[in-house]
Amino acid sequence: MKRVMLTVAYDGTAYSGFQVQENARTIEGELNRCLSGLLSEDIKVIGASRTDAGVHALCNVAVFDTNVRMPGEKISYALNQRLPEDIRIRRSEEVEADFHPRHCESRKTYEYRIINSQFPLPTKRLYTYFTYNPLDAGRMQTAAAYLVGRHDFKSFCSVASQAETTVRTIYDLQVEQENEEIIIRVTGNGFLYNMVRIIAGTLMEIGKGRREPECVPDIINALDRTAAGPTAPACGLMLTNYEFL
Amino acid sequence: MKRVMLTVAYDGTAYSGFQVQENARTIEGELNRCLSGLLSEDIKVIGASRTDAGVHALCNVAVFDTNVRMPGEKISYALNQRLPEDIRIRRSEEVEADFHPRHCESRKTYEYRIINSQFPLPTKRLYTYFTYNPLDAGRMQTAAAYLVGRHDFKSFCSVASQAETTVRTIYDLQVEQENEEIIIRVTGNGFLYNMVRIIAGTLMEIGKGRREPECVPDIINALDRTAAGPTAPACGLMLTNYEFL
Repeated sequence: MKRVMLTVAYDGTAYSGFQVQENARTIEGELNRCLSGLLSEDIKVIGASRTDAGVHALCNVAVFDTNVRMPGEKISYALNQRLPEDIRIRRSEEVEADFHPRHCESRKTYEYRIINSQFPLPTKRLYTYFTYNPLDAGRMQTAAAYLVGRHDFKSFCSVASQAETTVRTIYDLQVEQENEEIIIRVTGNGFLYNMVRIIAGTLMEIGKGRREPECVPDIINALDRTAAGPTAPACGLMLTNYEFL
Repeated sequence: MKRVMLTVAYDGTAYSGFQVQENARTIEGELNRCLSGLLSEDIKVIGASRTDAGVHALCNVAVFDTNVRMPGEKISYALNQRLPEDIRIRRSEEVEADFHPRHCESRKTYEYRIINSQFPLPTKRLYTYFTYNPLDAGRMQTAAAYLVGRHDFKSFCSVASQAETTVRTIYDLQVEQENEEIIIRVTGNGFLYNMVRIIAGTLMEIGKGRREPECVPDIINALDRTAAGPTAPACGLMLTNYEFL
């Protein structure tokens, strides 16, 4: 028996999120189905980040146990033959038998991409959020700086969350502008349910001038979801990096 | 009666190319249908570049004549309400009554994007061509330099073409590498049928080491399609700029 870790990229457009659900297409469901077929075992993967419906990933992580003789690093090639083209295994490798991706300290990076122009770009519509309201990236960056560090992010967590603690650490949070595109890039030790999308929604309100950057400490201190801005739509969000420490 | 010019962006994935066809979904067909509905006239647009099935555009151009009173620059907003989300009008403006986009001197830029890594990236699969064969962008750039200038590009033209002359001028042709992505960017006064895709296919053969960069003058001089490399797949191609001189 060995434990294999997969690094998984996917286009989340056609999926009801990562986590297995009855009667819905999910990334985890496709991985389980294709791995079980490939290895002739009943495989159930353990995912690292349970991304929401419509969210994309360059490098989510999943582990599973198998008795197959095939070396762990070969599984990626065989599995990619079976997976739909919007899911690809970028790497497979054998790991310690007790490695659990959700019980490990990690650093994750998410990007939230916004097209800010008069009209949306058809070729980016599936991977960005579009708004024609002019956004001031400088104001968004000023606001973003207040979120860096160890804070109780209860105000940036959807009420449905069952997390034991809402304290998290953001190591870095940058707002970059590349022509018509604004990219919010955030790295932290973990993120609460909808946390990056609520950060993006709040920064966009500040970028539009509806709130001041200086209101962010008050939002954090409120410990109340209703103090923050709206949850930005899923399609703009992508998990771009995952490191285990 | 006035003539209106549209600047059109589209994701070509779901279309059988620009030009109207019976029983197939095309960009021109959608423009005609939505404009005719909006303006209550029988509108038939004249397109500038008849891009192939699966090819994308940031800025193709189409013109049409109308008696509507609505100012030309307002038509974009109204038309975008009717168009499917993979086609967007970025700009509409009134032009001279005799302006014809295919009878004008112009400069067009196309980009051909290649993902060159072990596995394809799901979120780029619709807008890039994937190859795991390592490509040497430096060799491709060396080869590209031979194509710049005024040449008879008959070797880079699919035999189905009905062009009167196969002489064209390439003003600039660059091969750039950004991490796992190689971008071929070509600007010219016009392109023959499949010309950019044949250039891309030929440069990729050279990038893989199957041919030498120095063979490009021989390919040009052969005036024979079979001398050049294969036609690269449509999905990697995007019309990115269009200027009338």
